[in-house]
Amino acid sequence: MERNWVKIAGGITAPQGYQSNGVAAGLKPSGGLDLTLILSDQDAVAAGVVTTSVVKAACVGYAQDLLAKKTPARAIVINAGQANACTGIEGVEDNARLAAWVAEATHLDPTQIFVASTGVIGQRLAMEKISAALPLLVNSVSVEGWENAAQAILTTDLVRKTVAMEAIIEGHPVRIGGMSKGSGMIHPNMATMLGFLTCDARVSVDLWQQMVRRAADASFNQISVDGDTSTNDMFLALANGCSNAPDIHPDTPAALTLENMLHEACVDLAKAIARDGEGATKLLEIRVHGAPSTEEARQMARVIVSSPLVKSAAFGCDPNWGRVLAAAGRSGVDFDPQKIDVWLGSFQLMQAGRPLPFDRKEASTYLKSDPVTFDIHLHQGLGEGVAWGCDLSYDYVRINAEYTT
Amino acid sequence: MERNWVKIAGGITAPQGYQSNGVAAGLKPSGGLDLTLILSDQDAVAAGVVTTSVVKAACVGYAQDLLAKKTPARAIVINAGQANACTGIEGVEDNARLAAWVAEATHLDPTQIFVASTGVIGQRLAMEKISAALPLLVNSVSVEGWENAAQAILTTDLVRKTVAMEAIIEGHPVRIGGMSKGSGMIHPNMATMLGFLTCDARVSVDLWQQMVRRAADASFNQISVDGDTSTNDMFLALANGCSNAPDIHPDTPAALTLENMLHEACVDLAKAIARDGEGATKLLEIRVHGAPSTEEARQMARVIVSSPLVKSAAFGCDPNWGRVLAAAGRSGVDFDPQKIDVWLGSFQLMQAGRPLPFDRKEASTYLKSDPVTFDIHLHQGLGEGVAWGCDLSYDYVRINAEYTT
Repeated sequence: MERNWVKIAGGITAPQGYQSNGVAAGLKPSGGLDLTLILSDQDAVAAGVVTTSVVKAACVGYAQDLLAKKTPARAIVINAGQANACTGIEGVEDNARLAAWVAEATHLDPTQIFVASTGVIGQRLAMEKISAALPLLVNSVSVEGWENAAQAILTTDLVRKTVAMEAIIEGHPVRIGGMSKGSGMIHPNMATMLGFLTCDARVSVDLWQQMVRRAADASFNQISVDGDTSTNDMFLALANGCSNAPDIHPDTPAALTLENMLHEACVDLAKAIARDGEGATKLLEIRVHGAPSTEEARQMARVIVSSPLVKSAAFGCDPNWGRVLAAAGRSGVDFDPQKIDVWLGSFQLMQAGRPLPFDRKEASTYLKSDPVTFDIHLHQGLGEGVAWGCDLSYDYVRINAEYTT
Repeated sequence: MERNWVKIAGGITAPQGYQSNGVAAGLKPSGGLDLTLILSDQDAVAAGVVTTSVVKAACVGYAQDLLAKKTPARAIVINAGQANACTGIEGVEDNARLAAWVAEATHLDPTQIFVASTGVIGQRLAMEKISAALPLLVNSVSVEGWENAAQAILTTDLVRKTVAMEAIIEGHPVRIGGMSKGSGMIHPNMATMLGFLTCDARVSVDLWQQMVRRAADASFNQISVDGDTSTNDMFLALANGCSNAPDIHPDTPAALTLENMLHEACVDLAKAIARDGEGATKLLEIRVHGAPSTEEARQMARVIVSSPLVKSAAFGCDPNWGRVLAAAGRSGVDFDPQKIDVWLGSFQLMQAGRPLPFDRKEASTYLKSDPVTFDIHLHQGLGEGVAWGCDLSYDYVRINAEYTT
């Protein structure tokens, strides 16, 4: 992929025509910023990907409706603290009411407002607290608010996750901004992967949705912290056309540039989530080459990066190629074990299905670095795929076990 | 299922016409018994189920060949210490040579001898040590050797796993004996689930294979310690006809009795593996009711029992129904979240998709017991499925991380 874009400072408000902020509404028991608004100055095309779980939070169903209707969007409101999942019809009503409140305060239509929630499953939105905090939030959004916004969507994450990029398209700067939160959990939470992205390109809703789906498949759908999919997972991307670049049409160099940049922005946000997985001490990157297809390469990479054995070995700095091979073998991808090559960083561990001698001490030292990469060559076809995850540490168990009732 | 069988004392030699023993051949670095022989006095029909991994140990391919040919079997030789997986053509030759050695020492044909291996992936069989120990092993098999045999197939398991049962079929006692080892791992092992079962019924190889496949699907294929499938997983079952009961024909009461007993013996061995999972402090039993089909019920039960979040919550004695529901939601089984009921032991946590109030302290106390059961009712159909696993503890991480190079 040609890198015809550069990283720039900033986050969700880096593109033209976006304002944002995050405020403390008292939604999180732990305190801190917890209510966020992203506002576009103009109508934006909206695209998104949501959880595949059968059990979906109220905000997910609401977003699916809006995305299906392809109506222009103007805002996204995000709360941290209550997932509003498994809350029945009341939860659906709360969600619609929140969208209506934001619409009223911003003089927009509720169909232009997306809602995203993260927090405790089974808990309804703290409507009174949200109602009390909304005026301040709406009045305080600005171009400078991107850091507060990135902070306010977090739950157990340790660090903010933001990205901003710029490409020159037909002589005009086009920007992407984004932020994400990771899959941490805190009792009795099953917290959520959320990703939000803004762009000032002018693009049709259908082309944008195609680009966003492809980018999400190669990024957010290729990370794993513990294999659990949330009821609230959501990635939303707005494109408002506020740059001066001309319309972007399919199958043009401009479209390719935009999609490449979008892809990299999503990978950046996704990797940040994996690296900040609960208890993680390092990022794992699993690259599968020579698979029969892209989908199979990605699938194998996902299975390997999710393996508790591979993750434990990474935590223990153990260059255990047997575990990588065992995970590849059960991944559902057909391959010839007599052809497989395996590398850990620059150490080749296996060639054509045979273990090679290597310096275990140096390999173990390499495993202390961050990120740690494994390359698996299947020599079966042209499929390439990457997945990201983290190691499995004592802290993962502590975080998820010790919040007992 | 009608319980028309009783548990009896003993193990793999409980049925008529079997002898066994385990000896110390010096194969395991940790020492102890590590080489096992199961011998049938007469030709037995053999059935089995092996790993679905693309990467298969030499013994697995060998067993598949024998099973496909449906030739009568007389013996199973099992080594612990070297997996003989990823060892190329040399590994295949070693495996065949071991079968030939056993055949020579027992005056049988190599096609009558199964081989099963567990241990370090990438390590070839320690042929010299095996050769040295084989005469003693062959000469020492007896009806009394079942405890040594059950010990010698273990690697990191903490306890022996054996079962013996008897049913009266048309006036004659018919017995099943069995033993298994669990999915522990020890550096740089990816150890293996092995199960061996003997029976003295007289049954056709085709009917026996059908019964064994169904029993394995409901037992060994429904347990998870950490979601990893080994290169060496194998379950073999022999039926030698040494009881005085008449031939067992399909679709008869006798066949039903035999299959029920076989099913329960397999479930017993499988649960013993789950309870002895690495670092486990308790057995988890997940029962799914009212699914669209048996397969879907089993699938959902497997996904729930494998969830690191559910397993961590069980370790922490946290009655976290949100995690159970989230795992159900991503299980790939379609259901209506508004109909689901969830029980933890006798505590109903959820009814028709709504959380119920319950005594969290008492529920947490219940979670300290062993086993811990969750019942999930989908109200979608008649499918029932059970899966077994264990909690995720600090010790799991320690065992799998701290054996660093």
